[in-house]
Amino acid sequence: MELTGKSLIASQPGSEGKTFRAFEPASGAAIEPPYHVASAADVELAAQKAVEAFAHFGRAPGTARAALLKQIAANIDALAESLIDRAHQESALPKPRLKSEVGRTSGQLRLFAKVLQDGSWTMPCIDRPDPARKPPKPDLRSCLRPIGPVVIFGASNFPLAFSVAGGDTASALAAGNPVIVKAHPAHPGTSELVGAAIRDAIRECGMHPGIFSLLFDSGVSVGAALVQHPAVKAVGFTGSLVAGRALFDLAAKRPEPIPVYAEMGSTNPVFVLPGALAARAPEIAAQLFASVTMGAGQFCTKPGLIFLSKQPPAVEFVHVMQEKISQAAPFTMLTSGIRSAFTRETEARTHRIGVTLAAAAPMAPDGESFSAIASLFETDFPTFLASSDLSAEVFGPTTLLVRYDDPRQLLEAARGLAGHLTATVFATADDVQKYPELIAILENKVGRIVFNSVPTGVEVTHAMIHGGPYPASTDSRTTSVGSQSIFRFARPVCYQDCPDTALPAELQNANPLGVWRMIDGEVTRQPVLGA
Amino acid sequence: MELTGKSLIASQPGSEGKTFRAFEPASGAAIEPPYHVASAADVELAAQKAVEAFAHFGRAPGTARAALLKQIAANIDALAESLIDRAHQESALPKPRLKSEVGRTSGQLRLFAKVLQDGSWTMPCIDRPDPARKPPKPDLRSCLRPIGPVVIFGASNFPLAFSVAGGDTASALAAGNPVIVKAHPAHPGTSELVGAAIRDAIRECGMHPGIFSLLFDSGVSVGAALVQHPAVKAVGFTGSLVAGRALFDLAAKRPEPIPVYAEMGSTNPVFVLPGALAARAPEIAAQLFASVTMGAGQFCTKPGLIFLSKQPPAVEFVHVMQEKISQAAPFTMLTSGIRSAFTRETEARTHRIGVTLAAAAPMAPDGESFSAIASLFETDFPTFLASSDLSAEVFGPTTLLVRYDDPRQLLEAARGLAGHLTATVFATADDVQKYPELIAILENKVGRIVFNSVPTGVEVTHAMIHGGPYPASTDSRTTSVGSQSIFRFARPVCYQDCPDTALPAELQNANPLGVWRMIDGEVTRQPVLGA
Repeated sequence: MELTGKSLIASQPGSEGKTFRAFEPASGAAIEPPYHVASAADVELAAQKAVEAFAHFGRAPGTARAALLKQIAANIDALAESLIDRAHQESALPKPRLKSEVGRTSGQLRLFAKVLQDGSWTMPCIDRPDPARKPPKPDLRSCLRPIGPVVIFGASNFPLAFSVAGGDTASALAAGNPVIVKAHPAHPGTSELVGAAIRDAIRECGMHPGIFSLLFDSGVSVGAALVQHPAVKAVGFTGSLVAGRALFDLAAKRPEPIPVYAEMGSTNPVFVLPGALAARAPEIAAQLFASVTMGAGQFCTKPGLIFLSKQPPAVEFVHVMQEKISQAAPFTMLTSGIRSAFTRETEARTHRIGVTLAAAAPMAPDGESFSAIASLFETDFPTFLASSDLSAEVFGPTTLLVRYDDPRQLLEAARGLAGHLTATVFATADDVQKYPELIAILENKVGRIVFNSVPTGVEVTHAMIHGGPYPASTDSRTTSVGSQSIFRFARPVCYQDCPDTALPAELQNANPLGVWRMIDGEVTRQPVLGA
Repeated sequence: MELTGKSLIASQPGSEGKTFRAFEPASGAAIEPPYHVASAADVELAAQKAVEAFAHFGRAPGTARAALLKQIAANIDALAESLIDRAHQESALPKPRLKSEVGRTSGQLRLFAKVLQDGSWTMPCIDRPDPARKPPKPDLRSCLRPIGPVVIFGASNFPLAFSVAGGDTASALAAGNPVIVKAHPAHPGTSELVGAAIRDAIRECGMHPGIFSLLFDSGVSVGAALVQHPAVKAVGFTGSLVAGRALFDLAAKRPEPIPVYAEMGSTNPVFVLPGALAARAPEIAAQLFASVTMGAGQFCTKPGLIFLSKQPPAVEFVHVMQEKISQAAPFTMLTSGIRSAFTRETEARTHRIGVTLAAAAPMAPDGESFSAIASLFETDFPTFLASSDLSAEVFGPTTLLVRYDDPRQLLEAARGLAGHLTATVFATADDVQKYPELIAILENKVGRIVFNSVPTGVEVTHAMIHGGPYPASTDSRTTSVGSQSIFRFARPVCYQDCPDTALPAELQNANPLGVWRMIDGEVTRQPVLGA
């Protein structure tokens, strides 16, 4: 397929105008074609068409929406080779990783298709009437309904799985909402390919083209216009704290405020408890090294803060970590901006009083354009407690060891944490019994607590929660990964004494979809009796 | 019990300072005792104690929290007589209404106690591991956990059911969160009585006193300080659009933004369809009159906008409504502020071009301090469409008839609506079949669609949704009435490869609570097998 460099507005090409190009991170060279920045008219049209489409799509049966998701998945799988090539060129991410990302992307679309086969996700709830009561008790039924047109921002670090047809798009479509994607400017070609796959699937399923639009911009104005558009009812974003907070603030200031689900990364503290350290220091260090440097450390779940004892068993841990870091080959970062920020932040850390550079990889040869090297920093507990900026995320292949004297200090550290996506605990059964308070504290600080493993590698399942208290996300009540993310884009509606035929299928007496419902407080799949 | 006039900070009396008094709406006379405005130190202490309490209460078993809710309910029921007397003095609401409000208040506490007997509300979800997969698939389990200390604002129009121990307090406590209530200054005595009932219940259950604090203020600074306090993690509010939006804005500007659930009232449009009108115009008019004037029209679900045909069958409807309105006795409003706003807004409507006063009740005799009279306004469809302010809420016993020529205009009217708590449709089966689009549109505009009944009278059940798109509320994803309101004050947490004993009981292998869980995508109450 030939790339056009144009936005895609409800199946039609967007307007021409000012252009920008993506860059090859490996060489720094610009990539063809140039991409046209979407116009104000493009934004308006995309919003209008989304409103039109919502009137149909929002009430389409779950099975019809499932068919669309499966068709998008099939179209993406069919495009795999071109997608991997283009994404590799635009992101420098290794091809095997991109191959698995294609599978993850189509896999999560299919997961939502499966969720839709069963309408139980709408949480149908029925309270039967009591005409004999004084006053008579009405028939009340509620379930989740779609929220309206949703704007999704593509992420730089997952050009497929958190981008045009990523998790937010899949869950928003699954819930019955039209989606307008603002593509990430670092991978416009990949975005256009995926956008075309979605457009084709919509046509193949005979659905309204306004269900999907894709807009390009190298700056912030298209995104800002979308978030402020009155037709838009929710926003999904994955990226930096600064950008996520800016979108949140814009949405909160609207005449009609709307929810913004910004997943803004985190430092993912790791607690290495004494028993686990004594039992397997080198293995834990090796696992953490792999996790810190995976994808050049450009994961929002990268462990950037490791609480480690000062006691003798830690020597081996530090030794393994130092050896691996100092032998790590240079990494190519996703964009020049990410690379500069990483270099600036690790430089600054090098000069910090109380922080030492415990290991660093050799510099890259000249000419590697967006390259960066791995590093390991170390600090003591009092310095860490006195410097809240040391728990801020540094996006890239680096981590900070915080050395503690006494495991009870871990509780103090945990209490002082802001919100993170994950916390990891390396612990024996004995450790867990000894420090129950640690788990209790972490529960209020993160979206996911990982035991004896690394936080990178986020499974797309039903129980996954990828989110957490601010600043990990702007809304700790939801996840951006896994089937529960469908709840982001839905709201409950109650029907009082509604004729059966006018009810959503999930609420009809006969239970034609065979869904799980709560009837008078009891969970059941039975039809409503005596109706 | 003697009223002290002091705030209640974690079971202890708050500080003394500037005071204010409540007023008897019937006479305008000030009521003893004076109430001390809470100090900054009171706010700080309440927040600190809530944080302390959360460490215990957030992890207390559901049965322990249920016991607390039942004890609060029992204490409130035991106080019923004093509560009704004091609330009547402070609000002028009729005693039978207040008696039923006591029952509603203790009833909803008991409803949440029942929800807690079964931990299924936490939506436990388990994905079993697959060690053979490459890489190995971990064991993932998630459920809802409490969000942290919650601030609740008492409402003026429900001194019991939406106040100190109202729905928001019940659901926040049920989910495991300490609660700090800012009492409504119109009924401080009622608030203190209920606060003491909660304090006693906490002591009787041997729980941490920081679970509950009650603060007084006649102005806005205590509320603002609470919403901005870093320890506070969510806010519940019922009241005006201006106040609700101000709290929302404050919370959105915090360094760590938090959810604000402000239920800000609505105009609750009513659509009288041709078939229903032809069949029973006088009955519908009588029902609507009762709903418009119930509680002096001071309900957030009062029908303030009635779409009625211009065709002959409407004559009888208008006649009945005019007759009833013009014979209605004067009403005593809750506060002088509500009375002035109501008088000002209905006055303004009287002078509007295109709007006619179709009926008004006789003026009250002099001396009735906070009194107001019922009124009925009428306008035509073009005037309505051209004047968006005509769909704004007027809080009190008045409503506006919008006369349509053609039922198709109803669709246009529905499409133009902002968010409302409810929409009501009077329709025969034939009407429903003829205008399916009306229901489809209303679904995206309101939290509850009522058929052939009135929107006032909000049942406290599992399926009730009392909320809706902005400006009905600041968060259309939740309800403030019914058992689903527990979701407001909870967030999901995921446990990866967590030792069984460290998991919340809802997620443990044996399923000791016998709750409904989703295991590998299937709904079941079985234990986790093979674990």
